[in-house]
Amino acid sequence: MLREAIYHRPKNNFAYAYDKDTLHIVLQTKKDDVESVSLIFGDPYDWKDEMWQTQILEMTKSGTTDLHDYWFSAVKPEFHRMRYGFQCSDKTETIYYTEGGIYSTPPMEIANYFCFPYLNKADVFTPPSWVKDTVWYQIFPERFSNGDRSNDPEGTLAWGSTDPSPTNHFGGDFQGVIDHLDHIVDLGIGGIYFTPIFKAHSNHKYDTIDYMEIDPQFGDKETFRRLVKECHNRGIRVMLDAVFNHSGYYFPAFQDVLENQEKSKYKEWFHLWNFPVKSEPRPNYDTFAFVGSMPKLNTENHEVREYLLNVARYWIEEFDIDGWRLDVANEVDHAFWREFRQVVKEAKPDAYILGEIWHDSMPWLQGDQFDAVMNYPFTNAAIEYFGKNEINAEDFASTITKVLHMYPKHVNEVAFNLLDSHDTPRILTLADNNFDRVKLLYLFQLSFIGTPCIYYGDEIGMAGGQDPGCRACMEWDEQYQDRQLFNFVKSLNKLRKNEPVFGNKADFRIVKADNSKNYVIYEKFNAEKKLIFVLNNSSNTLQVDLQEITDQDLLEWNMEGTIRKNTVDSSSAISIKPLYFRIFEQQIK
Amino acid sequence: MLREAIYHRPKNNFAYAYDKDTLHIVLQTKKDDVESVSLIFGDPYDWKDEMWQTQILEMTKSGTTDLHDYWFSAVKPEFHRMRYGFQCSDKTETIYYTEGGIYSTPPMEIANYFCFPYLNKADVFTPPSWVKDTVWYQIFPERFSNGDRSNDPEGTLAWGSTDPSPTNHFGGDFQGVIDHLDHIVDLGIGGIYFTPIFKAHSNHKYDTIDYMEIDPQFGDKETFRRLVKECHNRGIRVMLDAVFNHSGYYFPAFQDVLENQEKSKYKEWFHLWNFPVKSEPRPNYDTFAFVGSMPKLNTENHEVREYLLNVARYWIEEFDIDGWRLDVANEVDHAFWREFRQVVKEAKPDAYILGEIWHDSMPWLQGDQFDAVMNYPFTNAAIEYFGKNEINAEDFASTITKVLHMYPKHVNEVAFNLLDSHDTPRILTLADNNFDRVKLLYLFQLSFIGTPCIYYGDEIGMAGGQDPGCRACMEWDEQYQDRQLFNFVKSLNKLRKNEPVFGNKADFRIVKADNSKNYVIYEKFNAEKKLIFVLNNSSNTLQVDLQEITDQDLLEWNMEGTIRKNTVDSSSAISIKPLYFRIFEQQIK
Repeated sequence: MLREAIYHRPKNNFAYAYDKDTLHIVLQTKKDDVESVSLIFGDPYDWKDEMWQTQILEMTKSGTTDLHDYWFSAVKPEFHRMRYGFQCSDKTETIYYTEGGIYSTPPMEIANYFCFPYLNKADVFTPPSWVKDTVWYQIFPERFSNGDRSNDPEGTLAWGSTDPSPTNHFGGDFQGVIDHLDHIVDLGIGGIYFTPIFKAHSNHKYDTIDYMEIDPQFGDKETFRRLVKECHNRGIRVMLDAVFNHSGYYFPAFQDVLENQEKSKYKEWFHLWNFPVKSEPRPNYDTFAFVGSMPKLNTENHEVREYLLNVARYWIEEFDIDGWRLDVANEVDHAFWREFRQVVKEAKPDAYILGEIWHDSMPWLQGDQFDAVMNYPFTNAAIEYFGKNEINAEDFASTITKVLHMYPKHVNEVAFNLLDSHDTPRILTLADNNFDRVKLLYLFQLSFIGTPCIYYGDEIGMAGGQDPGCRACMEWDEQYQDRQLFNFVKSLNKLRKNEPVFGNKADFRIVKADNSKNYVIYEKFNAEKKLIFVLNNSSNTLQVDLQEITDQDLLEWNMEGTIRKNTVDSSSAISIKPLYFRIFEQQIK
Repeated sequence: MLREAIYHRPKNNFAYAYDKDTLHIVLQTKKDDVESVSLIFGDPYDWKDEMWQTQILEMTKSGTTDLHDYWFSAVKPEFHRMRYGFQCSDKTETIYYTEGGIYSTPPMEIANYFCFPYLNKADVFTPPSWVKDTVWYQIFPERFSNGDRSNDPEGTLAWGSTDPSPTNHFGGDFQGVIDHLDHIVDLGIGGIYFTPIFKAHSNHKYDTIDYMEIDPQFGDKETFRRLVKECHNRGIRVMLDAVFNHSGYYFPAFQDVLENQEKSKYKEWFHLWNFPVKSEPRPNYDTFAFVGSMPKLNTENHEVREYLLNVARYWIEEFDIDGWRLDVANEVDHAFWREFRQVVKEAKPDAYILGEIWHDSMPWLQGDQFDAVMNYPFTNAAIEYFGKNEINAEDFASTITKVLHMYPKHVNEVAFNLLDSHDTPRILTLADNNFDRVKLLYLFQLSFIGTPCIYYGDEIGMAGGQDPGCRACMEWDEQYQDRQLFNFVKSLNKLRKNEPVFGNKADFRIVKADNSKNYVIYEKFNAEKKLIFVLNNSSNTLQVDLQEITDQDLLEWNMEGTIRKNTVDSSSAISIKPLYFRIFEQQIK
């Protein structure tokens, strides 16, 4: 057995409180190396040396990556505390892995075992329950719809009359969103994420001038209040973008610094290196990236914290918004986010806090900071496989399994799974304008664990490259919309809502990944039912022998138009069109 | 190269901010598998695909355990943010390890690299600076000295007249401590850790009745105030024991629950399962262990939090204490400890917060909760090797290397390194009454990284088994004290104070661990000087060839009486008495 590959450490994705009574325990071993793993556990104050013979639970292999197997168990320790170790066996030996190391017989001393000291409810990661069942829709407000010409900024161009540029304006606004809520409802959306709406010069509004004011080109506070109400009336939540890492250049506090320099009462609000403060040729203060017009805010300063926390509270209390998406979240200190969470949850206990982090984010997802992060590791794997066909089936399966084992289960359930955004090319463009690939992407995204987000316009087949290309005006003329794609996404959203196993109330497992024929099979399952997804990612027709998967007859979901279910004889081989899929249902007895 | 054994994950002991400008990066590989590791790094907003050719730093092998090697680098990223990966080479191949996985060429996409998003000062783990240079002395107040007969509880026995029992009293008190501060100063102590002093019935006082009152058997608040002042006058800090996980049975709030049951206004202060609340035959409420007289406090309740935080504040503000040791710290929720830290540091910014945790404690040592934990993994390794000779030299070396790589460097520097306590047998008893073994233990403890603690009486050779045996009355009659041991410990404490490399301002590395001859060699070093410690843990005279260690002539520290330094020819073999040691000094050019 390869001892060097065995890994476990409590209080992260390897051991965590799933709820106030349940612990989840995960072990890593070398791929295909260990035949069975059992969890040995007991109460620390009722520990007996023979514990390993009495309290022992066989663990399930929950996934395999290119290098490792993962083993899973859920336990409800009676007194909310546990010591534990792992018994790993292969054909030739059995070893015992504990905090103290690896032993050939179970160690006697309790101090050697792993420790989950106590399940305190206060520490359980508890995201809002509604998020699990929400499909998001991301709107870049300047480009969704111009519903009110009276608030258009100077130089506003005719809707869609030209390509988007870093600086041009098309007059999108809140009234435009209100006007088109039917489209969003029709698609089956449960929440809208708006990129910034506060006063700022740019078309993207990430260069905030005033966090307490709506940008006049979008409307006023009354329009926004009406927008939130109209959304809520339709069962749609509203999430705003909090750009708290940095302000804009014209943020009054920064202007005061430029004007009064060392005498400015705001000089502690930023990270200034020396005086006089200047942004050219290179800023002499901390910035977002190297952008002089985006000075980094000093969130260690008490006044800055008070100011931003007040902003967080204000838009919830006064306008009833349901969540905050945190821009450049990982560059702001953890201490600030802990305070932020307290303020937000006090104002609205079931508000959603979503951090923009592109990397492994375990340190922010321990229950004290965010409810979720933008799940770019998921994005990358999906795009590279179904979108671009740049990685093979096994690499895709390995990465997806890694993504699922990177975080606790309840973290995955509310992960913000996007395929693209205002910061990336659109999926149709990434998929080289291949609509079949886009459909595979949507099928995968919408049947996966997490809370998916659709970027405005993707659902009707808009294309667009890297920013500014991906920020084009929404196409409202139905004859230029791909209604077939729209209906496909809509039917997936309906399945997600009506079929618990298709949606977020099930487990996910890769069943097969075949490089030579370029297909994957995965399943979603709960105690009653299993769905089997076969996705053909190649441009050849695929023949699959159903007996490889099950010896039981299956129901097939016919996805053309309304969903009908047909019985399929599992002894027969089935064929799948190029870049297409089939879904089968199996009852679990 | 064994890919499966390679491990790294940011924001714990593998990657952390050492100070506001410096990142420490650590990589795990299989033992003796990789020949060299380099860190590839760059600024995320100035990333170039050829980064791996330009910003690359060779890492140092910082230690080896039974299974793994560890590699270390310190970096000061100019703009306080970094993306990075590892280039690992052996004789046959070079691979690149990043967040995205393992590659044969450096991946192009920055998203694949590991991310340390930003070094925010607010998140840097910052223990009080004085702790590094403090040697602690633990006092169990009821057994240190009876300085005031007038406060003796009923039935107090004559000092040392009989063995300690779970319930007897000998009248130790604060006046007794004040009377003997000279002994403590003479030993070279910088801080006293008192087990609980608040009002309670038992002799150990872990069953608190009133957290705001001194137990009358120890004196009153004025005596305590005088004790703290007398300590401070002598440069000695004072740390108290906070028993916040549970109260005592006679804590008024719990008594109120027993009396008024469901009508008690304190019923939310505890975790009650049902009514009527009763402690016999088995408590129907959460307790410490299964002890009905120690009901677990509900620290999620606002009133309980306020009450305990007020206690924490009161003893600092009113009596100027310097630290809190937190009893059963890991069974209390993290959220409470975060608030606790804020209150304590507000009252006294350089107060020391020490958690009682016997296991791996990374989740409490991220900067937001504790400054240190009681380092039992260190204790166990030291006792099992030098104390009991139950593990071999290699296992000892492996465990100690593991202990040092379990936490960030600045966490290790303030780790509370104890050899025994009121909860374990005394070291002399653990070492089967062998004073030579006790000396090796002290030498190792006092030359190791961390902040050592001496349990009262050990320094003059007191013996005693598991509680209550280890809680005997301090021996004050010099003819029964082992003054030779006392002088030995005293001289080590002096070295720790006066020789930076002996003390806490140096790195530690195991150089050799030999099972057959049963000895270890370790070194402490900084940029100027290296100390080489050779410890013979066998009952045979040891011959060591100095050339194995260095080709340079060394100075030897003669530890008998005052320390003299003699030149030693490194080409000669040296011999070391059974269960003895020699220390050599080497200048680094």
